[in-house]
Amino acid sequence: MPAETFWVDGEIGALVPPDDRGLALADGVFETLRVAEGVISWREYHEARLLQGLRVLSFSNPQDLASGLLLQTEQQLAADLGAVSGTLRLTVTRGSGPRGYGLPIPEQPRSVVRFSPGLPDRLPPARLAISPIAWAEQPVLAGCKLLARTEQVLAMTGARASGFDEAIMCDPEGAWLSTASGNLFLRLGSVLVTPPITAAGIAGTRRQVIIEQCAAALGYRVEVRAITLADQQRADEAMFCNSVIGVRGIESVEDRSFICFEAAEALNHQLHPATAV
Amino acid sequence: MPAETFWVDGEIGALVPPDDRGLALADGVFETLRVAEGVISWREYHEARLLQGLRVLSFSNPQDLASGLLLQTEQQLAADLGAVSGTLRLTVTRGSGPRGYGLPIPEQPRSVVRFSPGLPDRLPPARLAISPIAWAEQPVLAGCKLLARTEQVLAMTGARASGFDEAIMCDPEGAWLSTASGNLFLRLGSVLVTPPITAAGIAGTRRQVIIEQCAAALGYRVEVRAITLADQQRADEAMFCNSVIGVRGIESVEDRSFICFEAAEALNHQLHPATAV
Repeated sequence: MPAETFWVDGEIGALVPPDDRGLALADGVFETLRVAEGVISWREYHEARLLQGLRVLSFSNPQDLASGLLLQTEQQLAADLGAVSGTLRLTVTRGSGPRGYGLPIPEQPRSVVRFSPGLPDRLPPARLAISPIAWAEQPVLAGCKLLARTEQVLAMTGARASGFDEAIMCDPEGAWLSTASGNLFLRLGSVLVTPPITAAGIAGTRRQVIIEQCAAALGYRVEVRAITLADQQRADEAMFCNSVIGVRGIESVEDRSFICFEAAEALNHQLHPATAV
Repeated sequence: MPAETFWVDGEIGALVPPDDRGLALADGVFETLRVAEGVISWREYHEARLLQGLRVLSFSNPQDLASGLLLQTEQQLAADLGAVSGTLRLTVTRGSGPRGYGLPIPEQPRSVVRFSPGLPDRLPPARLAISPIAWAEQPVLAGCKLLARTEQVLAMTGARASGFDEAIMCDPEGAWLSTASGNLFLRLGSVLVTPPITAAGIAGTRRQVIIEQCAAALGYRVEVRAITLADQQRADEAMFCNSVIGVRGIESVEDRSFICFEAAEALNHQLHPATAV
């Protein structure tokens, strides 16, 4: 199997026209999908978020587009590579368009798919910096997984350049909102606290699965509210989650250390049984 | 001459690899350049802003990259199309990269150039809506012409769907900050007021030329400060500017009408003599 495989509008190995609006204006959204033996994990959560993004961007027929593209992506993976496991990125752009901000007429969305084989190794608890780059607040777009990810690129790059694994990104008031690549949970006793994604941030699929399913299955109660300074000090455990890594424990946030990782391990096992340690 | 011409890394008619980080993450910047008979107008201002964006994104050797790419773009235009006039868009991305936010090593930036022949007709004064989408404040990125332009796409689309030409975009406090495609000036007597681009917005090249050169040449004084409600009511004239249209007068912002366009016309003539009416 080659290192990675790409499809553009379903055509394997194709390239992207330079007038694509995803490239020109970040006019589109994406999903990063975990695939285990050819099946997309937690697919209905990805479909719901993809649909939300397409609606916010005013794409035509967003429901048909979201469900159709996820189905087509899974089918083309099976047809071309078989029942593989790995990470699949589905990018949906507004397609080719004229110069400027005005919409193409008619609009022909384009899909760009990237498959990276192999599920990631289970990683040890992470050491996090606090990024100097806060989330910009844009309630209209909050939650969506837009192509525009400049802040996350800079936060992740800055943290790694300083020897950290990842970075906490705060809201403009300085409250911990997420990490560069995932959503954040603190555990205080049997309560999991995760910040609301209403003014900024990405509404992660795994965050949603934890809120709706995994927390209760393990006897935890979730509170969706801003993380306070007292929470940071009192928390028994901290963790972040995304579709690729599942749930990863946090060993430290700068000089604040955490020594317990039991909820992170248990939640990861619920989310992604195949790679739990 | 074909309708439009594209170059990818200097190769005419080439396509873009699907792992380009401009497409995947909006990891890049662009300049929209006005070209008159093969020469880029106000090129040093574009180079300064391109350099600022590349620096903010931590590209390697940003100075050489910015000046080299503008020179190469002008030269390839001359070699392939001759001394043409039109609009040239230069996109600079971080090039191909691995999945995720981490930077490619080594980093090989990619240029994507689009030439649209013909200078635009001089447009009549514009009718503007006020967009419900405010600028998100991100001081680290303010001023740069990043690929991430979702808010402008939505603001422009919304205004046009309601029969307007363009839209005012406000800051989070509701003060007029810019239009979707340009920078904003109000004229109060002999004073031109334009909002600071420190927390949000794009630092337009034509805005800078007006501040540094054109205003004084016409006897106007520029105040860079937030636009107040009193300014909106008292202004004799309103206008917006960008590299394609020059300066365009504003006839109305929703129910606020303007009847004078003399500064807009005079400034446009200073900026772009060839198409002034």
